[in-house]
Amino acid sequence: VGIKLYELCGAEPDRLFSPNCWRSRLALAHKGLDVETVPVRFGEKDKIAFSGQTLVPVLDDGGKVVPDSWAIAGYLEDTYGDRPSLFGGAGGRGLTRFVNEWVGRGLFPALIRILAVDIYNHLTPADQTYFRQTREKYFGTTLEALTAEPEKKIAALNQVLEPLRGLVKAQPFVAGDRPAYADYTAFCGFQWARCISAKRLLAADDPVHAWRGRMLALYGGLAGNAKGYPC
Amino acid sequence: VGIKLYELCGAEPDRLFSPNCWRSRLALAHKGLDVETVPVRFGEKDKIAFSGQTLVPVLDDGGKVVPDSWAIAGYLEDTYGDRPSLFGGAGGRGLTRFVNEWVGRGLFPALIRILAVDIYNHLTPADQTYFRQTREKYFGTTLEALTAEPEKKIAALNQVLEPLRGLVKAQPFVAGDRPAYADYTAFCGFQWARCISAKRLLAADDPVHAWRGRMLALYGGLAGNAKGYPC
Repeated sequence: VGIKLYELCGAEPDRLFSPNCWRSRLALAHKGLDVETVPVRFGEKDKIAFSGQTLVPVLDDGGKVVPDSWAIAGYLEDTYGDRPSLFGGAGGRGLTRFVNEWVGRGLFPALIRILAVDIYNHLTPADQTYFRQTREKYFGTTLEALTAEPEKKIAALNQVLEPLRGLVKAQPFVAGDRPAYADYTAFCGFQWARCISAKRLLAADDPVHAWRGRMLALYGGLAGNAKGYPC
Repeated sequence: VGIKLYELCGAEPDRLFSPNCWRSRLALAHKGLDVETVPVRFGEKDKIAFSGQTLVPVLDDGGKVVPDSWAIAGYLEDTYGDRPSLFGGAGGRGLTRFVNEWVGRGLFPALIRILAVDIYNHLTPADQTYFRQTREKYFGTTLEALTAEPEKKIAALNQVLEPLRGLVKAQPFVAGDRPAYADYTAFCGFQWARCISAKRLLAADDPVHAWRGRMLALYGGLAGNAKGYPC
């Protein structure tokens, strides 16, 4: 039976670039659970119709179906409670959610303004049409206008990163001495970028750069060895 | 002997407006510890010379002297470990620091651009001179220019608040079901505003507004009953 994770891919089935899916992949690795990846393109929503909704990631744990990265993290924590905690215990769960919100409402909006055209360039023609239509409607502008003046967008990203920068200057991981879900949920933004863009986002002497390096190396280089660009 | 907390005050000794000091006051209340407040004006740094540095808050716990709000929180947690945890256990300590960094590097910079002149107006003439000189040098502009176009500054604050908004929509407190230091460190920014400014920062239907209300009511209205403005 085993565990399956349905993940977004680009034109190449092994270009697994979705940040939300990376959260779940790293959470599974943290729990020491083996997983089979099922790549899904934007145009292949029939593959996840069994989940009753249209978004990846979808976890299928031997018939138990869980969509949504935050719900997946909670499911793994509750179901595999004898394995290393994703949240540092009950007290850390609410706090981890703050990091998760900061990522979704701060980091991702800054990143999409850098990455939108790079994402587009890694999709099948059919997915390109879908991606352009949905995102241009959402943002009320073209992908090209959204990502104009990349230096300014990268400067804005680096402003958003200030809290993370202060933190990983003071301690090795977001969660403290060891990585946990708070690290994965923040790192997934950088993995998103790394998978589909050659742009340099961080200065080499930035503490965030060093933290990202530690994250790329975890679990035998799970993230660092995935198809992407050097960073 | 007992515990003393040296806190910044305005022209009135009971206008205790410093956000960093509020973090510590609420942390002491969380631990159920009685404390004597010693008000300190900007121009009264001689009162805290015994601490070997120049900033409040300074905690004096029967001769054990601890400056710096984050250090005070850690001291209280380690020293009074049998009382309710400020961090939700070891796993929550690193994560709480992320919230602390988000406050210091995101929330406070947004707030000072709204509050600087209001702070100035609540100081003694000598402190006004000190405050204007040091802050205008730091920001490279006048207090009046820093706080110009308040509607824009309040809109920027509300953008910064997005992660907190998402969080307290999903759970009652930053730390989860019950308040902890992560709540105090975020709330202290609003208490700073409340103590010295009549400006409305939050819409009445904002989940952050409701959370702030819960925070004002804690510990018998410790923050809500302090000298300040309605909010």
